[in-house]
Amino acid sequence: MECTVRLALKEDCKDILRMIRELAEYEKASEHIKITEEMLMEDGFTDNPSYRCLVAELPPGQTSKEGFSIVGHALFVFSYSSWKGRIVYLEDIYVMPEFRGHGIGKKFMKMVAKIGVESKCSAIQLAVLKWNDTAIDFYLRHGATDLTSGNGYQVFRFDEEATRQLALEEEK
Amino acid sequence: MECTVRLALKEDCKDILRMIRELAEYEKASEHIKITEEMLMEDGFTDNPSYRCLVAELPPGQTSKEGFSIVGHALFVFSYSSWKGRIVYLEDIYVMPEFRGHGIGKKFMKMVAKIGVESKCSAIQLAVLKWNDTAIDFYLRHGATDLTSGNGYQVFRFDEEATRQLALEEEK
Repeated sequence: MECTVRLALKEDCKDILRMIRELAEYEKASEHIKITEEMLMEDGFTDNPSYRCLVAELPPGQTSKEGFSIVGHALFVFSYSSWKGRIVYLEDIYVMPEFRGHGIGKKFMKMVAKIGVESKCSAIQLAVLKWNDTAIDFYLRHGATDLTSGNGYQVFRFDEEATRQLALEEEK
Repeated sequence: MECTVRLALKEDCKDILRMIRELAEYEKASEHIKITEEMLMEDGFTDNPSYRCLVAELPPGQTSKEGFSIVGHALFVFSYSSWKGRIVYLEDIYVMPEFRGHGIGKKFMKMVAKIGVESKCSAIQLAVLKWNDTAIDFYLRHGATDLTSGNGYQVFRFDEEATRQLALEEEK
């Protein structure tokens, strides 16, 4: 199966949103999704995009069971490490179940790495759910290190409410 | 002690690098530092900066024991969540030991949150070393949630070598 992995176009946002939802469902987190097709179009396709995205496209004429020709996505940002400088943060990497096992995930990783190197990034970082053994095996096989094991890192998030509270709180 | 927290200027990069090194020393990770003053100047002060930084400055005439007037920094990037859209990723928050306990960290958090809200970000995310109880208490007290606890996330990094390998690997 010869999938093409390419940079996403604005027209792909509908498919990207569909796959973000599929991935959230797989991660049992659908209720956390606030993103919309409009946000994806506005944030990713300006002169100074907030994120970048790759999609996997089936050859002309082929579709998934449900009739989709876009069957995977990899969404990433250019982030920054105060130790290393520019790095890639890979937010999502997703392939529809029907198309797994054909090396599409690998193609995504290679292309993200290539774009990262060309953009002078010196590392790729990502988060994965602890029970997602398939993904973890994949990352370890390709040379990734777990930063959260042992005495490593914990990741915290201030959600929208906590962020607003902080921003608004009176100076004492 | 009335510290001013303000956006960093290009001239602050020397101090920022010094504090990045102090923080890495505290985290027992000095050998991982590849960043230079030149990188910080180039990457943070263009039309489209790779990172943003705040610094804490002592009132005119005051300095640290070693003679520094810049005594803390908060380095962050505008990142992206595929669930929520634009978010802030807070890479560093550091206050020199001599000046801790005066609310400078809190000032940093408030200003990062304010900039985040103004920039339409809906969350602040950050990583902290598991043994850094002071920081963790601080984040929890201000409403943060631990994303890496229980069945949560693991964070992986492909270092420079692994990233290059991925980028260069022949297609099979």
